[in-house]
Amino acid sequence: MTRVWLPDPPETLGGLPDGVVADVWTGGETLPASKDEVEFVVIPFGVTPETLRKVTRLPNLKVVQLTSAGAERIIPYMPASVTLCNARGAHDAATAEWTVGVIVAHLRNFPRFSKAQEEGRWDFAPSESVAGKHVLIVGYGSIGGAVERRLAGWEVTIERVARTSRPAEGVQGIEDLHALLPSADVVVLLVPVTDETRHMVNAQFLAGMKDGALLVNAARGAIVDTDALLKELNTGRIKAALDVTEPEPLPPGHPLWTAPGLLLTPHVGGAVRQTRQRAYAVVSAQLARYAAGEPLQNVIGARGY
Amino acid sequence: MTRVWLPDPPETLGGLPDGVVADVWTGGETLPASKDEVEFVVIPFGVTPETLRKVTRLPNLKVVQLTSAGAERIIPYMPASVTLCNARGAHDAATAEWTVGVIVAHLRNFPRFSKAQEEGRWDFAPSESVAGKHVLIVGYGSIGGAVERRLAGWEVTIERVARTSRPAEGVQGIEDLHALLPSADVVVLLVPVTDETRHMVNAQFLAGMKDGALLVNAARGAIVDTDALLKELNTGRIKAALDVTEPEPLPPGHPLWTAPGLLLTPHVGGAVRQTRQRAYAVVSAQLARYAAGEPLQNVIGARGY
Repeated sequence: MTRVWLPDPPETLGGLPDGVVADVWTGGETLPASKDEVEFVVIPFGVTPETLRKVTRLPNLKVVQLTSAGAERIIPYMPASVTLCNARGAHDAATAEWTVGVIVAHLRNFPRFSKAQEEGRWDFAPSESVAGKHVLIVGYGSIGGAVERRLAGWEVTIERVARTSRPAEGVQGIEDLHALLPSADVVVLLVPVTDETRHMVNAQFLAGMKDGALLVNAARGAIVDTDALLKELNTGRIKAALDVTEPEPLPPGHPLWTAPGLLLTPHVGGAVRQTRQRAYAVVSAQLARYAAGEPLQNVIGARGY
Repeated sequence: MTRVWLPDPPETLGGLPDGVVADVWTGGETLPASKDEVEFVVIPFGVTPETLRKVTRLPNLKVVQLTSAGAERIIPYMPASVTLCNARGAHDAATAEWTVGVIVAHLRNFPRFSKAQEEGRWDFAPSESVAGKHVLIVGYGSIGGAVERRLAGWEVTIERVARTSRPAEGVQGIEDLHALLPSADVVVLLVPVTDETRHMVNAQFLAGMKDGALLVNAARGAIVDTDALLKELNTGRIKAALDVTEPEPLPPGHPLWTAPGLLLTPHVGGAVRQTRQRAYAVVSAQLARYAAGEPLQNVIGARGY
C-alpha cells in the first residue's frame, strides 16, 4: 500500500494507480493522520516554510512532487534522502503564450493604445514590427521550445542558450551568452533560479544589450537585479516585460510600477484555467511510474537543475 | 518613354526600370506638369475625393497603383478604362502580427493587467488559454495565410472561409459561414469592403457566435454594424478587438470608447516602420512588369475583388 498526499481529491487526477491510497492535504499546518506512512507528497500552493520543513522530514517520505516548474522555494527544505520533481511541461503552453504575447504587445505599442483607449483618444502611431527581429532565449528547455514553436511563422531569427551547449539542437552554452547579447532585439529569460542565475541580469548583462532591446522575464524575479534594470528603464535605453519581480508581489509605491517602457503582469505566465488540469496530468503520470517502480521524471537536484 | 507619378523620389523605390521617368506627386491639388502624359500613378495617402476624381480621369492614364491592401476608397472614382491594383502582400506580416497579438492579449487578460499596472495594483487572475481554441478566419487570402502561419505552433484549430471555396487549400465558401460560426472561439475578419461584405457582421451574424467568443476586425470598420456590436458588447456576451471602426477615426465620446470587453487600436494593423519599404517593393515589381509589357498583378475589379 502506497500512501500519497494530494492537494485535491483523487478524482481530480482521474483516479489513482492500483495499490495507492490518497489523503487530501491542502497545505495547512495540521497534517493528515497518515503522516508516518506517507511516501509521496504533492505540494499545495502557499505552504509556510515551517510546515514545509516538517513535511519534507516525515519518516517514510520518498518523493516531493511540485505542480510548478520552478523549484527554488522548496529546494532549501529538501533532505538529501527525498527526491524532488517539478511539473516540467505542464506550464509550457501558457508560459510560451504569455512570452510571445508580451513581445508582440510591446513591439506593436499595445500599452500605448490601451492608454489612449482609456482616455478616448485616437492615437495613431507606427510601431516596430516583430518580423526581422533577433530573439535570444536564455535558458532553452521545455518552455523555450514551446516559445520557439509559437514564433516559427513570425519571420524572426532565434538563438538558444542553455547552461551547457547542445549542438544537435542548436543550443549554445552559457559561455556564449555575452557574445550573443549585443545582436538580440529581444532577450527572453527562462532559466531556473540557482546560485549561478540569481541576479544574472545585472548592470553588466544589461549594458551588453543593444539600445532599444526588450528584456522579457518569464522566469523568476530573482534572476534580475531590479535596481540595475530600473536604471536602464529610466534612461529609456532598454525596455522590459516582466511577469515576475523581486520583491513579489510588487508592493504599492515600488518604482517598477511607474518605470517607463515596462509592461508588467502579476505572475500570470502559467495562470490559465487549464493549469490545474495540465499539472495534474503530469502528477498522475509520475504517480503511475512511482507505483510501478519505474524511474521518476523531472527530478531536480540540490543545485536547482 | 513611360511617365509615372510617385509619392516619394524614385530612389525610395530603389530606382526605375529603363524607359521610365517619374515625377513626385504627394497628393496635393496642384498636379505635376506631366499630367497629360502620365500613365501610371501611385496614389499617396490623404488625397481628397475631388483631386482623386481629376487624377483618375487624366487622358493617358492606364494604371492606378495603391500602397494599401484595401481599395474601397478608390474604387468609386475608377473609370472602366483604367486598371486598379492594390499592394497585396505588403501588409501581410504587420497585419497578421496585430491579429495574433490582440488574440493573445485579449484571451490572456493583458488590458486588465495594463490597467492594474497603471494603478500600481498586483491584480493576479487566471485567464483563458490560446491553446485549444477554434479560430475562424473570414476572408482567407494573403493576410489570412500570414495569420495561419503565425498560429501554426499554438495548438489551435483553424477554419478558413472565403467568397468562393478552394477545397485544395481547405478554404470553405461563404455559404458555410453560418454553420462554422457557432463553434468558433475567435472570429477574425479579413474581408475587403464590397457590396456583399458591408455590414456583414450584423445582429444575426453576432447572434450566431458562441457566448464569450472574440470578434477580431483587422479589415475595415464598414464590415461591422457598430450598433449591433455595441449591443452584444454591453451585455458582455461577445468580446471584440477592433483596429478599424465606423466611423473612423472614432470621435471623442463615441460609445465604443467605453464598451466593455473591447480592445481598440487606432488603425495600426499595417503600421510598422517597414510599411513604406514593403509597399514600395510591391510597387517597384509592378512598375517593372508594366515597363516590360507583362501582365500586372493584384488587379482589383469594380466589385472590389
